[in-house]
Parts: sequence; structure tokens; C-alpha cells
Amino acid sequence: MSIGSNFARLLKKQVSNINSQKKWTHSVAVIGAPFSKGQKKRGVEHGPTAIRNAGLLERLSKIGCSVYDVGDLKFAHVPNDALYNNVVKHPRTVGLACQVLADAVSRAIGAGHTCITLGGDHSLALGSITGHAQHCPDLCVIWVDAHADINTPLTSKSGSLHGQPVSFLLRELQDKMPIIPGFAWAKPCLSRSDIIYIGLRDLDPAEQFILKKYNISYYSMRHIDCMGIHKVMERTFDQLLGRRQRPIHLSFDIDAFDPTLAPSTGTPVLGGLTYREGVYITEEIHNTGMLSGMDLVEVNPLLGATSDEVKATANLAVDVIASCLGDTRDGAHMIIDDLPTPSTTYESDNEEQVRI
Amino acid sequence: MSIGSNFARLLKKQVSNINSQKKWTHSVAVIGAPFSKGQKKRGVEHGPTAIRNAGLLERLSKIGCSVYDVGDLKFAHVPNDALYNNVVKHPRTVGLACQVLADAVSRAIGAGHTCITLGGDHSLALGSITGHAQHCPDLCVIWVDAHADINTPLTSKSGSLHGQPVSFLLRELQDKMPIIPGFAWAKPCLSRSDIIYIGLRDLDPAEQFILKKYNISYYSMRHIDCMGIHKVMERTFDQLLGRRQRPIHLSFDIDAFDPTLAPSTGTPVLGGLTYREGVYITEEIHNTGMLSGMDLVEVNPLLGATSDEVKATANLAVDVIASCLGDTRDGAHMIIDDLPTPSTTYESDNEEQVRI
Amino acid sequence: MSIGSNFARLLKKQVSNINSQKKWTHSVAVIGAPFSKGQKKRGVEHGPTAIRNAGLLERLSKIGCSVYDVGDLKFAHVPNDALYNNVVKHPRTVGLACQVLADAVSRAIGAGHTCITLGGDHSLALGSITGHAQHCPDLCVIWVDAHADINTPLTSKSGSLHGQPVSFLLRELQDKMPIIPGFAWAKPCLSRSDIIYIGLRDLDPAEQFILKKYNISYYSMRHIDCMGIHKVMERTFDQLLGRRQRPIHLSFDIDAFDPTLAPSTGTPVLGGLTYREGVYITEEIHNTGMLSGMDLVEVNPLLGATSDEVKATANLAVDVIASCLGDTRDGAHMIIDDLPTPSTTYESDNEEQVRI
Repeated sequence: MSIGSNFARLLKKQVSNINSQKKWTHSVAVIGAPFSKGQKKRGVEHGPTAIRNAGLLERLSKIGCSVYDVGDLKFAHVPNDALYNNVVKHPRTVGLACQVLADAVSRAIGAGHTCITLGGDHSLALGSITGHAQHCPDLCVIWVDAHADINTPLTSKSGSLHGQPVSFLLRELQDKMPIIPGFAWAKPCLSRSDIIYIGLRDLDPAEQFILKKYNISYYSMRHIDCMGIHKVMERTFDQLLGRRQRPIHLSFDIDAFDPTLAPSTGTPVLGGLTYREGVYITEEIHNTGMLSGMDLVEVNPLLGATSDEVKATANLAVDVIASCLGDTRDGAHMIIDDLPTPSTTYESDNEEQVRI
Repeated sequence: MSIGSNFARLLKKQVSNINSQKKWTHSVAVIGAPFSKGQKKRGVEHGPTAIRNAGLLERLSKIGCSVYDVGDLKFAHVPNDALYNNVVKHPRTVGLACQVLADAVSRAIGAGHTCITLGGDHSLALGSITGHAQHCPDLCVIWVDAHADINTPLTSKSGSLHGQPVSFLLRELQDKMPIIPGFAWAKPCLSRSDIIYIGLRDLDPAEQFILKKYNISYYSMRHIDCMGIHKVMERTFDQLLGRRQRPIHLSFDIDAFDPTLAPSTGTPVLGGLTYREGVYITEEIHNTGMLSGMDLVEVNPLLGATSDEVKATANLAVDVIASCLGDTRDGAHMIIDDLPTPSTTYESDNEEQVRI
Repeated sequence: MSIGSNFARLLKKQVSNINSQKKWTHSVAVIGAPFSKGQKKRGVEHGPTAIRNAGLLERLSKIGCSVYDVGDLKFAHVPNDALYNNVVKHPRTVGLACQVLADAVSRAIGAGHTCITLGGDHSLALGSITGHAQHCPDLCVIWVDAHADINTPLTSKSGSLHGQPVSFLLRELQDKMPIIPGFAWAKPCLSRSDIIYIGLRDLDPAEQFILKKYNISYYSMRHIDCMGIHKVMERTFDQLLGRRQRPIHLSFDIDAFDPTLAPSTGTPVLGGLTYREGVYITEEIHNTGMLSGMDLVEVNPLLGATSDEVKATANLAVDVIASCLGDTRDGAHMIIDDLPTPSTTYESDNEEQVRI
């Protein structure tokens, strides 16, 4: 009996060892960006806290990431931040926030981390992508969103800068861009073929014109309905990575998902991504091995009819980030190279069992 | 500074002009058909009001339609409207309502409108299609529905005429059709190859027999699961429009959608179309350029567990109709042919901005 | 008028005959297995009652099955059922329950029935498949589940036997299996190529290792996203039935469905099968004509936030079982070989109708 017990202990230890063998696939920096001045609704500045409270750091550790938490950035409100052109709101405040974020992202990427920015509103992507590009000038961008966020300050009707960051980033658009206060530091770092949109379903007329005129690739929900998410990702990687491997920046707006899944966001649009499509996109991005930076933006915990809706939205954000970093529905985040085997001694030792 | 302000005004005007340039793609007549005697449940006669209150007319105007609102038709209740064959309910009342609607639709089509009929129950389609066919004898029909509505008065078990309109419309079925009171005016205007069903998932045995025997094309939910909505639409147009362009009548029963999306309807069936599939169907129909008439039926605002469910169902009806008439997830309902460009003068004029 | 009435009666009778002509496609035995000791949560022992109360027997009769209700089995709680290896819970009780179920299933299959086991937890599948295999040693298994349930007693971290039944069934795994109390009777009856998983999305590391090492076929949710449920079923049948026709055992865990559809279950996992995918799987299995036994397990009516959620889960279980046994969205469960035709006499007799 004592031998049997010894074996039992030995086997338990063996299983326990198996479970603690993890691949440290990603060294990840997490930057909170509690910023909301790129749009009108209160609450999106609490996005980083909501995503952390939904267990992001624990989840990333569990799937084998080495996590460095930068904490939440501080963003100043620039005083006397008058409208630009009677339309564009908080230009100096948004410009400064993006500049602060760009520095933080640049440092994190420079230190060798995969950099995760938790928004906050989507105007921040101007900062995170610019900062990312300082170390990775050849990066490409996958922009997952219900909206194209590519109005220029001269075409925007709402004046909210979270609908405009891509116009600042694209070299081809610069002759259409006025110099607006707060953005003198921002230099475009992308060409039109460096970005692909996925999930679009609510385009302003000027945005549609820009996408067509500059031949910017996008897969709207209609394209996904037509060809399926599998082909969409295949073509995305063909274009972005077909000729050469290069770093990927994923800019993921939670409103890409259907509002039934992500109700706590400022500009929900019906007919969005399913949970499975969202996870498939991020699994595929992980599988390229080229993810270098990402934004997860527009989780607004003050919106949503119930606390369950808020939780579901924040949990979804965690799932998306974890999936980008190696969590998988096929369970591949651990390495196991053998199974425990029962010993002959052990078996014969348990005579009472044989009787059953 | 004054020059800058002038430019700002000029640019704003330019954007505003862009946004007001609309394509008047459709001249649309909207006919309310508040009729419920083709089935048993109270409330479907309030469908037209619910769909209007969900903003149909504004939405159609916004996407560039020229809308002519016919208003709601008046339907008489024929007295002493005894059962036909001890089964079929309100035959004279339903027959008369269809005749009234046929006249109205015929006038609207004759006046050059795309004609939208708001139901009311699906028995009305006998009227709208017959009226449509008076001006467009070569029309074809796409019938989107959970049910085939092709029982004959002799096979119907419920006796509700909203489950029978197609049997009156098909020439091939006429030797199986009794002459029933109220329908002497109705002459079949379709052949079996002129109609295709999409979304079926609840067929009576006699209906299935009819579909098979007369070789009527249908894509059940099973077919959609099997080949995807993209291929379904491709094949639909191949059959209906492959040999010649001709007018399309779309008869859309809201119960084609999954009950989670359209709960406020009389005969919901699990496993229906997703929002995206429904919109894809209608986008594709719009893209043919051949839509000439449509029904949107079976929205019943007295059904549904909550007022949110009723609103969601009515909003869905508006989305379907708008999508048929050119609303698109790719934002193509406006024409823009240039972007506003900032002037050099303007830029140099704003010295304070450069300092930021 | 009297002649008309006679005809009306005749026609009604004809329709009624049509509707009563049923194919007796399946002689079905239904076995309730109210057992919960393979996992930790109270309530799954009420699964059989919940599924019966949702109308299973009436539904099966309606679609033409000849139903033999075995009733609910009695399972003894073995006293002094100590943990095995300090981890595995209730081994003697679970082992005995499976043995009792194996006998019942073997008798039902031996009597020529298609055997439906209503769980209860998924540990029972060791019993039902073993019992099935006694009469059909060449059977194959389609295991539809969010989980692989293939931990060995030495790799399980939870110790719950509902996560382990497949390890007992596979011949290839036997050198990794200890002899544990309660299971001396259980002999493996499957080879690795006799089983295919569908719906996986939550694998333990050891389970993933086993699937890969033993080259066991599985279609995770990721595979379904990638290739579509249609191709998944095609490949499933290619592998299992390609070389020879043989009996199918379907082991269906309700948690394969998305938690929005089947909330009342013990281990829900986001991102599951849609209603339509679940029905498509079972329709296809029915269409092979080879279904010989099935389990429907893990409906737990004590879980779920509302009674509506419990009802939805139980109704879903009924839909899955009915679909396996011939219920179809294309309505093919009745045989009709003609339509009622109105007589000439009858038409001329109804002069008042012509006037309308």
C-alpha cells in the first residue's frame, strides 16, 4: 500500500509539472490610456479599468505571457482648447494625448515588448501607431472596426477626432489635411497599402470616397458575408505579408462586434462580427507570429443597459487580447510532451479495485 | 485671420454641398395595408403604423429616395363571410382586400414608382403581386419567408389564407384550386419557374409535396447552412434573371428572420436568417437594379414580450426596406466626387497652430 | 348543394389521410439516465425529466417514430466511494452507473431499437457506447461537445469523471489508464479512427496532447469557422463511413451549443454552435441512415438565470433528438403522393362564388 501511495504522489507531481510547463511566447507591455476627448460620451476613459477588472493580466499570465504593466497614462486637458474650424473638438487635448501615448508605446516597443494599449477612444490609435512606427517603420495595420475613422478634419461632420485618426496616418492624404492645433508633431507613417480594414458597416460619404479614391483595402460586413472570415483573413495576410514578413499593429475597436455582444460602446452598429469571427481574426493574427502592437478601444463601462452587459463587453475585450497573444480554442497554450503512465507495481498493488 | 475664417466658411460649405448631393435612385410609393383577416392573431393590422413610426419615410428620404406616401388603404369586412369548405376563414373579406390592394399597387407601378406594401398579413401578397403583374406581366418573385404559404384551400389545415397566397398565383396549380368566394377576380400570373423561396424551415406535408411535384425552386435554411447566402443569391439571380432582365417583386415576411431578431410576429420559427443574411439578400436585390415592387409583412406590434422587442422588429423591417432601396453597409448612397483641400494661404495664416 | 357538401367531406377525408400517412422510420427506445456523480453541480440528474417535459415523446411520435419508453434507470450510490488517487471522484458510483446503463442500452439495441439515452452527465457515455458496442462492435462515434472529455484519471485536474469517458473507450490509450475501482468491467471498444469530435473549444493541455499524439480527428469551433459546418460533416462521414457503412453512435453534449442557446448546463463555453449548425449536424447524421444510438447529456434544469432559459435548453435538446430521427426543416417527415383536386360538379354548384 505504501508503494501505491508513493506512486500516486509521483504521478500527481508529474501531472503538476506538465501543467506548469509554459511557453513564454510574448513579453507584453500593457498601457492604460484612459482618454475620452476624441468623442462626446462620458465613460470611455474608464475602459482600461474595466478591462483590467475583467482579469486581463491574470489571463495573459495564464496563457504564458510575461506581462509588464505600465499602468495608466496621465493625460492633461489643454486649457482654451477652442474648436478647430468651428467643428473639430478638443484638438490640442487630443493631439497632446496622442503624443504622450506615442512616447509610451515607443518606449515599450523599444524595450522588446508586444505593446497593448487599452483605450479610451479610437483617436488614440494615432498615438499608438505613430509610436509603434518609430521602432518599426515597416509596420502594417489591421483595423477592425464598424467605422473607417478616416474623415479628415475638413470632412468630419461630428468633429469628433475618434472618427479621424487614419487620415492623419496616411501619407497619401496629407494634401487634404489642414494643419490643426495639437498635431504638428504627428507625421504620417503609413501608405495606403499598409492598412486593411475589417468589419466596416457604417461609412460616411466622404470616407467611402477616400477608400475608393485611394484604393484602400477593406472588408466590410458585406464582404465577410460574401466570402467568409476565413478568406478575408487569407487575403489580408496575402496583401500585408505576402511579399515580406513585417510587424503587425492591430487596432481593434470593440464596436466591430455585434451590439448584442459588445453593447457597452459609444457608437454601436447592428450586424457586426460574431464572437467566433472576432476570435478567428485574432487567432489568425497570432498565428502569423508578427503581432507587435495592438489597441483595444471604445469599451465604455458607463454605457449598456445592465451591469451584465458591461461585464460581457469587458470580458470580450479580454478574450480578444488573449486570443491575439496565443490563447486558442484548440488549447495549444501549454507544452506537454508525455502522458503519465500507470506502473505495473501500482496496478497489482490495488487488489481491491480488481474485485469491483 | 479674416482670410482664414473665410476659408473655413468656404470649406464648410463645400462639405455641406457634398452631403446634399444625392442620387434619386428610386421613386418609391409606400402603401399601408392594415389587414389581418388572413390569419388569427390580433395586431398585425397595426404593422404599417409600427413600421412608419420606426422612421421608414425619413430613412428612405435620407438615402435619396423620392417617397410618395399613399397612406393606409381601407379594407371592408364583408358581412356573412362564412367558412369555405368548413375550413378556410374570411374568404370574401380576404379576397376583397387583395383586390383593393391589387388596384392600389397597379396604380403605383403604373405611375412609375417602386411600390412598397406594408402589411398586414401575407395573404396580401396575392393582391400586391397581381397588381404588380398587371403592368409587369414578366415579373419574377423572390419570396423570403419561414413558410412557403402555398397550401391550397383544399390542403390547408388551419384555414388561414395567409398560408395560401402562392397557390392562387401559380398557373400550374390551377387544376387543384377550387373556386372560392371572394377570389373570382384573381387570375394566376406566375409560372413555377418565376418564383424562388428563401428561408423556408417550416413546411406542411402538402406544401412540400407541391414544391417537389411542380419543381419549384427553394432555398431552405438548410440550403443556406449548406452553401451560404452568397451562393444562394447567385443561383437565385441565375434562374430568375439569367436569360433576361425583368422586374423583381420581393415578398418579405419578417418571420424569415430568427425569432431573436423579429419576435413580434405571428408564427415565429427557430433557426432563421441572421440580420446580416437578411441585409445581404436585400443588398443583392438592390444591386440587380430590377426591384420593382415589394411587400414587408407580418410585423405584429401586439406580439413580443417587451416594447423593446416590438421596436427591434419594426426597426428590422425598416432596415430591410431601406437596404432594398439602396442603403448599404459600404456607404454608397451618396455621390461625392472630390475632397475639400486646405489652402496654402489658410495654413500659413494659422501660425499659432504650428507652434503646438 | 348536397353533392357539393359530399365532395367537401370527401376532400377533407383525403387531406386527413394524407396527413396520417407516416413513415415509421425509426423504432426508438428512450432511456432516462438521471445521473450526476460524474461532475460536481447539482441538477443534471433532472435532465431526463426536463427533456421529457419539453415534449420529447410527443415530438418523436409526431415525426413518425415508434417510441418505446424504457423510463428512468435507477442508479445506486456506492457507499465508502473514496477518491481514487486523491483526485478522481465517486469512481465506484460512476463505474456502476455506466455498467447499469450499458446493460440497458445493450438490451434496447439488441431489441432492434435506435437507442436514445437522456443524461445526466457525460460520464454516462462510457456506459451507452460500451452497451451499444456489444451488439455493434463496428460502430463509430460522433462526439459533439465543447470539451473532449478525454483526460485519463491520471491527467484530470478536476477529478470529475464526465471529463474522462473517452479515455476509457479508446484501445490506444489503455497503457496510460490505471485500473480504477468501479471500472474493471469496462473494456475499450473504439480505436482512435472510430471517433470524431465536433465543436471543441476548451481543451486541457493533456487532452490536446492526447488528440495530437494519437492522431484523433476533431473539428474545433475554429475548424468550423474556417471551413463551414457543411465541409466538416462531409469530412466526418468520409472518414467514418467512407470505406464501409456502419452504425453511428452520436454523443451530443448540449454544451456544444453557444451558451446563449443552451445556458442551463454545467460547463458552458462562449463561442459555440449556432442553432442552425446543431440542426445541420443532426440532419446530416439522420440522412446517412446509420444512426443507431445517441446520448443527449448535460441539460441541467437547476442552472440558468430564468425559467425561460431552462425551457430553451430543454427544447433545444428535443429539437436535436428529433432532427436526428428525421424531423427536417424541409418538411420531409410525411409521405404525400397526391393533392386533392376540386371536382367540376362542385365548382358549378357554387354559383354565388362566381358572382363575387
